[in-house]
Amino acid sequence: MQLPRILPEVLGDLIRTALAEDIGPGDVTTGAALRGNETGHAFATAKEELVVAGTAIFGEVFHALDPALTFILRKQDGEKAAEGEILAEISGALAPILTAERVALNLLQRMCGIAALTRRYVDRIAGTQAKILDTRKTAPGLRILDKYAVRAGGGSNHRFALYDGVLIKDNHTAAAGGVGEAVRRVRARVPHTLKIEVEVRNLSELEEALVAGADAVLLDNMGIPEMAEAVKRVAGRIPVEASGNITLERVREVAETGVDLISVGALTHSAAAADISLNVVRVERGTLQIP
Amino acid sequence: MQLPRILPEVLGDLIRTALAEDIGPGDVTTGAALRGNETGHAFATAKEELVVAGTAIFGEVFHALDPALTFILRKQDGEKAAEGEILAEISGALAPILTAERVALNLLQRMCGIAALTRRYVDRIAGTQAKILDTRKTAPGLRILDKYAVRAGGGSNHRFALYDGVLIKDNHTAAAGGVGEAVRRVRARVPHTLKIEVEVRNLSELEEALVAGADAVLLDNMGIPEMAEAVKRVAGRIPVEASGNITLERVREVAETGVDLISVGALTHSAAAADISLNVVRVERGTLQIP
Amino acid sequence: MQLPRILPEVLGDLIRTALAEDIGPGDVTTGAALRGNETGHAFATAKEELVVAGTAIFGEVFHALDPALTFILRKQDGEKAAEGEILAEISGALAPILTAERVALNLLQRMCGIAALTRRYVDRIAGTQAKILDTRKTAPGLRILDKYAVRAGGGSNHRFALYDGVLIKDNHTAAAGGVGEAVRRVRARVPHTLKIEVEVRNLSELEEALVAGADAVLLDNMGIPEMAEAVKRVAGRIPVEASGNITLERVREVAETGVDLISVGALTHSAAAADISLNVVRVERGTLQIP
Amino acid sequence: MQLPRILPEVLGDLIRTALAEDIGPGDVTTGAALRGNETGHAFATAKEELVVAGTAIFGEVFHALDPALTFILRKQDGEKAAEGEILAEISGALAPILTAERVALNLLQRMCGIAALTRRYVDRIAGTQAKILDTRKTAPGLRILDKYAVRAGGGSNHRFALYDGVLIKDNHTAAAGGVGEAVRRVRARVPHTLKIEVEVRNLSELEEALVAGADAVLLDNMGIPEMAEAVKRVAGRIPVEASGNITLERVREVAETGVDLISVGALTHSAAAADISLNVVRVERGTLQIP
Amino acid sequence: MQLPRILPEVLGDLIRTALAEDIGPGDVTTGAALRGNETGHAFATAKEELVVAGTAIFGEVFHALDPALTFILRKQDGEKAAEGEILAEISGALAPILTAERVALNLLQRMCGIAALTRRYVDRIAGTQAKILDTRKTAPGLRILDKYAVRAGGGSNHRFALYDGVLIKDNHTAAAGGVGEAVRRVRARVPHTLKIEVEVRNLSELEEALVAGADAVLLDNMGIPEMAEAVKRVAGRIPVEASGNITLERVREVAETGVDLISVGALTHSAAAADISLNVVRVERGTLQIP
Amino acid sequence: MQLPRILPEVLGDLIRTALAEDIGPGDVTTGAALRGNETGHAFATAKEELVVAGTAIFGEVFHALDPALTFILRKQDGEKAAEGEILAEISGALAPILTAERVALNLLQRMCGIAALTRRYVDRIAGTQAKILDTRKTAPGLRILDKYAVRAGGGSNHRFALYDGVLIKDNHTAAAGGVGEAVRRVRARVPHTLKIEVEVRNLSELEEALVAGADAVLLDNMGIPEMAEAVKRVAGRIPVEASGNITLERVREVAETGVDLISVGALTHSAAAADISLNVVRVERGTLQIP
Repeated sequence: MQLPRILPEVLGDLIRTALAEDIGPGDVTTGAALRGNETGHAFATAKEELVVAGTAIFGEVFHALDPALTFILRKQDGEKAAEGEILAEISGALAPILTAERVALNLLQRMCGIAALTRRYVDRIAGTQAKILDTRKTAPGLRILDKYAVRAGGGSNHRFALYDGVLIKDNHTAAAGGVGEAVRRVRARVPHTLKIEVEVRNLSELEEALVAGADAVLLDNMGIPEMAEAVKRVAGRIPVEASGNITLERVREVAETGVDLISVGALTHSAAAADISLNVVRVERGTLQIP
Repeated sequence: MQLPRILPEVLGDLIRTALAEDIGPGDVTTGAALRGNETGHAFATAKEELVVAGTAIFGEVFHALDPALTFILRKQDGEKAAEGEILAEISGALAPILTAERVALNLLQRMCGIAALTRRYVDRIAGTQAKILDTRKTAPGLRILDKYAVRAGGGSNHRFALYDGVLIKDNHTAAAGGVGEAVRRVRARVPHTLKIEVEVRNLSELEEALVAGADAVLLDNMGIPEMAEAVKRVAGRIPVEASGNITLERVREVAETGVDLISVGALTHSAAAADISLNVVRVERGTLQIP
Repeated sequence: MQLPRILPEVLGDLIRTALAEDIGPGDVTTGAALRGNETGHAFATAKEELVVAGTAIFGEVFHALDPALTFILRKQDGEKAAEGEILAEISGALAPILTAERVALNLLQRMCGIAALTRRYVDRIAGTQAKILDTRKTAPGLRILDKYAVRAGGGSNHRFALYDGVLIKDNHTAAAGGVGEAVRRVRARVPHTLKIEVEVRNLSELEEALVAGADAVLLDNMGIPEMAEAVKRVAGRIPVEASGNITLERVREVAETGVDLISVGALTHSAAAADISLNVVRVERGTLQIP
Repeated sequence: MQLPRILPEVLGDLIRTALAEDIGPGDVTTGAALRGNETGHAFATAKEELVVAGTAIFGEVFHALDPALTFILRKQDGEKAAEGEILAEISGALAPILTAERVALNLLQRMCGIAALTRRYVDRIAGTQAKILDTRKTAPGLRILDKYAVRAGGGSNHRFALYDGVLIKDNHTAAAGGVGEAVRRVRARVPHTLKIEVEVRNLSELEEALVAGADAVLLDNMGIPEMAEAVKRVAGRIPVEASGNITLERVREVAETGVDLISVGALTHSAAAADISLNVVRVERGTLQIP
Repeated sequence: MQLPRILPEVLGDLIRTALAEDIGPGDVTTGAALRGNETGHAFATAKEELVVAGTAIFGEVFHALDPALTFILRKQDGEKAAEGEILAEISGALAPILTAERVALNLLQRMCGIAALTRRYVDRIAGTQAKILDTRKTAPGLRILDKYAVRAGGGSNHRFALYDGVLIKDNHTAAAGGVGEAVRRVRARVPHTLKIEVEVRNLSELEEALVAGADAVLLDNMGIPEMAEAVKRVAGRIPVEASGNITLERVREVAETGVDLISVGALTHSAAAADISLNVVRVERGTLQIP
Repeated sequence: MQLPRILPEVLGDLIRTALAEDIGPGDVTTGAALRGNETGHAFATAKEELVVAGTAIFGEVFHALDPALTFILRKQDGEKAAEGEILAEISGALAPILTAERVALNLLQRMCGIAALTRRYVDRIAGTQAKILDTRKTAPGLRILDKYAVRAGGGSNHRFALYDGVLIKDNHTAAAGGVGEAVRRVRARVPHTLKIEVEVRNLSELEEALVAGADAVLLDNMGIPEMAEAVKRVAGRIPVEASGNITLERVREVAETGVDLISVGALTHSAAAADISLNVVRVERGTLQIP
């Protein structure tokens, strides 16, 4: 599993923004406490069971400060790590390692936390035909990482943003004057490369969406029996997505209604950071080697 | 309570980055489903009890897309909001309201979530002399908002970044060859305007820190009795901070050891987003008025 | 007709880039030849028949240099203008008008040229059911304007970029090992909000695409009879796009095969600039008024 | 022939802007249709006779996405290429080649188109003493490439922008109150390193310019006999430039009037893109070699 | 006298860079010592005799932080100010005034210092025909302000940068193989809008320059008699510039040799900052008025 | 001595800004006078006695234009250089050396000038216990270099900016209503990692500061006897800083009052540029070697 093929500059800008935020004109503690020529090893270790995500950007943060550092991955994105397992090691000059530590961990812990929560949802619906999807409820500026972490956790991505997918929501319907009218207007205007998904709040709106020729429907905050009925009426013609109040407790019964897709905002807006630490061992330069 | 006095451009850049991430070359759904001349009201409503934080930036997001929108605050940052309470209202053209909605909510929900979690920690230690502090464990790029939300929740801020405070951590001590040596080196080199705080892992390191003239100490992952002994030995000469594994369950007994400061990474890296929705009512332009 | 609802900052950045390219540290001629307090009117006039596009950004260029200038539109985007017709007028300080003139005209002439060429294609296929589409063959950095101009000319937009639409081209098929395999791989991985269009070079690939469940097909460089046969085989199940060597001479017979969409790279990569001039009349400040 | 010695960052920014416009958060088709480990060759081939320009930036676009790609030039800038000739080859990972293809071609096709049109003008006046010049009528943001392409086609560059040359145009003259007054004002204020060129519309203004000591004159939209008379009156004292309505049909008789310089806006605002294609052949990694 | 007509964004970027450098995530002292609602007047006062330059950008710095501040100029750029004279006043909220103070003064003091030093040179050569010129020896990033301040002090500007003027220096001559060869090469390649100035170190090189048709010569580090001889030989055909070791003591005898231009690096690289202070008086909001 | 450990991007941005300012779309002289394949050596030589500072950034400027240039340091930052000593050498292609020359020298001459002036202050107080400090009176955009040069000259740094140190100045005191009130407010609000320094204008304010618990005091513009009395009253409890009108003539008697710190704005706002030249020798490529 790899970071998505994006312009390298995009990840680079993200790393630079994060480092600039934390370092500014300089790390006063490291600059004063170290002589600058100390070398050593650093170990990134899981302090709890987690799902790995973000190791590539974790390494890039260190390289952004010092391209001469050696970075070794011990676990691949998408793998589970047990408490105490080493995820990655960095060797070289200690000063840049200490300066980059917090930014690198902030990114890695966030991504592993999202992947771990996603995995719990995915595991909960094992054996059904449904897929767990993310949403646009991501941390501003970090969406590309948040959505990557969802994939590392075994989930799938919904549209990335407002520009690469049509999702007609209740507020659009209210403004347009109905589900059917909204679908028809959108069909007339968007490029033929986009499907048209529409949010429906009840079976009546569902019928309206089907008649208008929607390409997918999102069942918003429906009860389980109503969802099941909706699935029955769609009868496999178009994908059916469930959304709203999808907890770990409730996700399986949602999946068992037969919906195709279940989107969960909590994956990216409420995942707790994974517990990961970085421990440094000082090693004289002459004897520095990768274990 | 106000957003900190920072260069307006800093907030502006943050908002532009977030909007660019979500809008890119255009919101295809809103652009196609609306005619563009629809007007209405939008209500941001708390769907659970929360502590308000981030209303100013929430409003700025809408204004960034359409300066003609009217934005009215119903709750101030730092206040509690009950489930169902309206936090803010926006009136004007519906298209920019719908396009900005998700970015604005992503910021507000994150900030209210951090404020609410902070408030729970603060409430838990009511009556002690300790203060709840944040850390640098923030979402990359969003630190200025994360730390503002902590203050809105009743917490205090630790240093902002690596450049505005000295905190000698275990990895620095390992590199420098001891707590005392690290403190002495730093004192000789940093500007006289910075205090020198040092992390100690046991009472022996604490003594070393005191002898070397540290201006503050951080007790890292100590047990309660050892913390209490550390507080006794410091005897009020310098501030004592506790850190590591500070849960809601454990924070009160930590505070009761007599420490001055308790720093909690979870405030900013593991707060769940507050549940807030935006509901739109279409109102014809002629009759549009703020209630 | 309006510029698309995009982040105002996007257009602003484009204008600033263009002005910075031309002005740099200053317009030496205007700065030296004028005293700085001269005022007057400027008239943007069509020197040939054209289709109007880009008047809003044309005006924004002048406002970027001097927000106090008065800008009046005389023709709307999408309208035809005859030779000699005035498109817009600007009144106020002459120095910023002269400094902004070239950048503003460069943008307007390019956009009107694209709109005019698009209109010729659209007119040529009047009465058929086909639509004229643009491509990604735009001037780097100006795509949002190029594609807007196509709409102003009566055309429709294909996907905006690589991220908001799937189009499996011959090079992808070659890499994946066949049309069917490529369609199946893509279906398994892209968000459900995107349709899957695939380029086919002959009827055999067309069958493969239909079997694999493509959502649209692009007939690449086919002869007229083969296109007609392809349309017949698709039988209205999915949209059919024709592309490759679509000249003004040939476009009508392509449309008459029954294809739904005809994409034309020349609209944006080979349109000649429309001939438009800006004439300035000096008017003393006291008597300056909009005619 | 080389790209001009400019700050490497300038070209880099231009490439990044173009790639960001097309790739954004990712190329969904290539990311899904390829496994990511495919390798091969790509051939850029002229589909019509053209003049080569822009091969260096063409290669840089691929390298910006993947520095490990091998790029081989087959034709130098300034050379003619016949239909079917290979201009350049790229070898390596197929995914970045496919993702970069369109941006790289958009730049190359535009530049070769400009070079080819320039060459036609230059060839048309062969044997006269006149030089073909470009103007500031370039695509906003792409001027440095447009003007380079003119040189590759055998033309010469006029001033780059408003800051590196004085050209007093009719609108300046109108504002200043006459050709002579404008020349005198400018002489008093601009650095001594700049020549002063002034546009004249008739022989009377020409005399005024000569009396005022202009360093060059531009004959704007004059008829052939009037141009010849102007050349005679200037008598070689200063360079004479012709401009306005310079078509391929008319350019030779303009040159034969004896003018020194002929500036042609169409070179950069109305050149059709050259027809160039990129064809990819998949080759297994082990056997991948440059032919 | 005004700031040059440049893209407003250029000045804005410069101000934002300067404020960001000083304010970063916030002014901790002002934020903590003030309540935020204090209002008052601030007076910028000359503490020594100086020449005024930079008042516009001085005011813009305050407006960048708080557009509601009132800014009143008391002295115009180019005027002398006596010790104790008020240059400008600012009224409004005290917090942004205190936060912006240092950046605003740093810019104003530098510019007034340059203007004052320039004026001393200009006064020293009063009555001769020579003009005092600046050089490219400016503070990186601040050239546009440094060169403006030279004009405010009564000096003239040499070329702005490497792109808007030709100056063949000794290092170019060494690389090209002689003054004459360098002039000829440059003439063949640069746009006709640029003059060609060449540095000569002795009378022999001067002759070579004249023969090659240089448009201006720079006499580098010549003695007074040699300069006088050079002026005699040029005999008014082209401008003659003197440069190198031009002190206040020596500038008049240089001017009296008859040279046209004297360029002085010290104007911008060695001017001492002018002494200017900002004093704040707190005034309650109700009674706040501009004196 | 090294440049401070800062984000490499920070220095890179500074260099790019400086080069862009001077090169823009190209160095017309070098581009035209050289063929582009010339090679040689360049020597940076001190033309007067100076203190070396900034050699690393000096070298980076050349590398930014041409990474293939060889750069050799002959003197370390912090060392004195005598007139005629070589500071650094550059070998390789002449064109980028000539193009980068002025920007590189502008930075180096400014930094060496600051270091030399600092050294004179430091030498003047040799044998006292006081340290020479810089201020925030730096050239906007260049603070990180200005403050580095102060350290190279033997001085120490005061706070970097408004965000990393508290200094309550007279204007804050006026706004807050007294020294004691200001200190108390600040103590209640700023992070515990910052010391609180307060400016006092007389002994009465000094007492107020001590009572309020200030962590350091700045004696503003006091006479020598009053300073001595202030030092006596503080009695070593907190650091005492002297500021205001600190000339080379007066600095020793200030130091002899027993103050700990003496801050001098002139170090960075009024240091004359050091005199350094770059001389180029052309050497054919085959014989090019570092001496």
